[in-house]
Amino acid sequence: MRPLPETVSITEVGLRDGLQIEPRILATDEKVRLAKALIAAGHRSLEATSFVSPTRVPQLADAAEFLAMLGRPHGVEIRALVPNVRGAERAIEAGADTLVFVLSASDAHGRRNLNRTAAESLVDLSRIVSMAREAQIGIAISLSVAFGCPFEGNVPVTRVMELARRFEAEGVTRVSFCDTTGMAAPPQVDALARGLVMELPQVDPAFHFHNTRGLALAGVLVALQAGIARFESSVGGLGGCPFAPDAAGNACTEDMVHMLHEMGIGSGLDLDKLITASLLAEKLVGHELDGQVMKSGPRLRLSP
Amino acid sequence: MRPLPETVSITEVGLRDGLQIEPRILATDEKVRLAKALIAAGHRSLEATSFVSPTRVPQLADAAEFLAMLGRPHGVEIRALVPNVRGAERAIEAGADTLVFVLSASDAHGRRNLNRTAAESLVDLSRIVSMAREAQIGIAISLSVAFGCPFEGNVPVTRVMELARRFEAEGVTRVSFCDTTGMAAPPQVDALARGLVMELPQVDPAFHFHNTRGLALAGVLVALQAGIARFESSVGGLGGCPFAPDAAGNACTEDMVHMLHEMGIGSGLDLDKLITASLLAEKLVGHELDGQVMKSGPRLRLSP
Repeated sequence: MRPLPETVSITEVGLRDGLQIEPRILATDEKVRLAKALIAAGHRSLEATSFVSPTRVPQLADAAEFLAMLGRPHGVEIRALVPNVRGAERAIEAGADTLVFVLSASDAHGRRNLNRTAAESLVDLSRIVSMAREAQIGIAISLSVAFGCPFEGNVPVTRVMELARRFEAEGVTRVSFCDTTGMAAPPQVDALARGLVMELPQVDPAFHFHNTRGLALAGVLVALQAGIARFESSVGGLGGCPFAPDAAGNACTEDMVHMLHEMGIGSGLDLDKLITASLLAEKLVGHELDGQVMKSGPRLRLSP
Repeated sequence: MRPLPETVSITEVGLRDGLQIEPRILATDEKVRLAKALIAAGHRSLEATSFVSPTRVPQLADAAEFLAMLGRPHGVEIRALVPNVRGAERAIEAGADTLVFVLSASDAHGRRNLNRTAAESLVDLSRIVSMAREAQIGIAISLSVAFGCPFEGNVPVTRVMELARRFEAEGVTRVSFCDTTGMAAPPQVDALARGLVMELPQVDPAFHFHNTRGLALAGVLVALQAGIARFESSVGGLGGCPFAPDAAGNACTEDMVHMLHEMGIGSGLDLDKLITASLLAEKLVGHELDGQVMKSGPRLRLSP
């Protein structure tokens, strides 16, 4: 067994994965306020928006305006999700620091969500890698339903590993393995984490959980124990799952950070300022968020 | 490192720890309906009520009537919480199968919650053990704030272990270590679990978590890894914490069972029927509960 990592790095995905399901469309300057609160809390990697069809995701229709208004915050990586070459062109033009190419580990989810299978997505990958190189910006991959698919069920670890090998062969090593609909129970997390750490050490994995079945922090724990040290999470637990509309959303950043800090694992983030950002997010979306530490405070904030 | 247990046993505490904070006072026959739904789901150990002051906990003022109306369900242990000799007398008279003597690991919490320190509670313990023996019923202990106190902060593992030794010296080995206000982060769980398993093998511990800071299932996982195989949890996550009124309540039974079953660990419980019981609990208390699997379904319930 590996020792736990001393520090982890976290990409905040609330502005993209969190907001995209929210019914209230935020004004661009509201998003900038939230981004600034997140940066003030210490975030150095933001998945800021997505260059997808505005009719499919109206919340992110202002992707280019948002990046323009946000500017280039010093020392912060601004990531933009892109599903295809057209999205990559728009993201480069808008000044993203890193293109995050999204594809699905299962074909049923890929067809439904991106209108393409994994194989069809891979056709675009080389092209997008070249575009990123040419633009001298970063490239990463976000692999959806890596721990289970709401249409196909279990997604074999061998399939996920095979895709990761393909990414690496194309020169992309920063890969986020996403539990899009909260299907990552401890055995799925353990199997993929150990597979990656042992067999694909060149890949630099991030694990991205949803709390749809209450398993997000248990997943983080299992991943840490297997040697994973990069995570993606969402301010206040912002986000959701169209297949379980009443259930919780993404892994909550400050709840995860609270647990990590209690375990002596550094995150570079300020818990109090994360809570400030969550309260702002709650106000902007106009309903209560799922985060717990924003309601309870950290464990040693004592009662009088 | 120990192998994970193959099965765990679970005491359902929703009827007591869950309901006691609920503003709507349930009718006694509503509680019986809920108890029957829990038994139908496979529960064999229910913390059914508490013989405390009805002015302090109006929800449980019908403790004796409830036990009478519930009867003696075959093969089910009916546990009753008692804070003192008077409570023990009432519980014995009402026909409880097991007295659960409650005391606090911290004096500040004990004074506030039970109007007595741990030392003062211990004075009653021998007497209550004798009463249980004489009545030929079971005796167990529920130790509050075993992972942290909202007034004193950290509660040293040495203090908790010392109390557990005292219980054992009095002949009580079934002890529930309760995370009353959700302060059990992984290091606290690991330290107490390993201490108990290594140094007090005669004690049969149950761990009881609250999800106040989102850590309940992470706590279960850490406890399992250290060899703990008894847990207490609450249907639908019913319950709460007076110091964090908006945060989540007890560890949710069906969310925990879902995780355990996905890990191949048996519980003797039927997940679908647990969800039926949670939906009933939600209806009876009249507001949404914190459980996730009751909203999302288990991970392999696929979308069409």
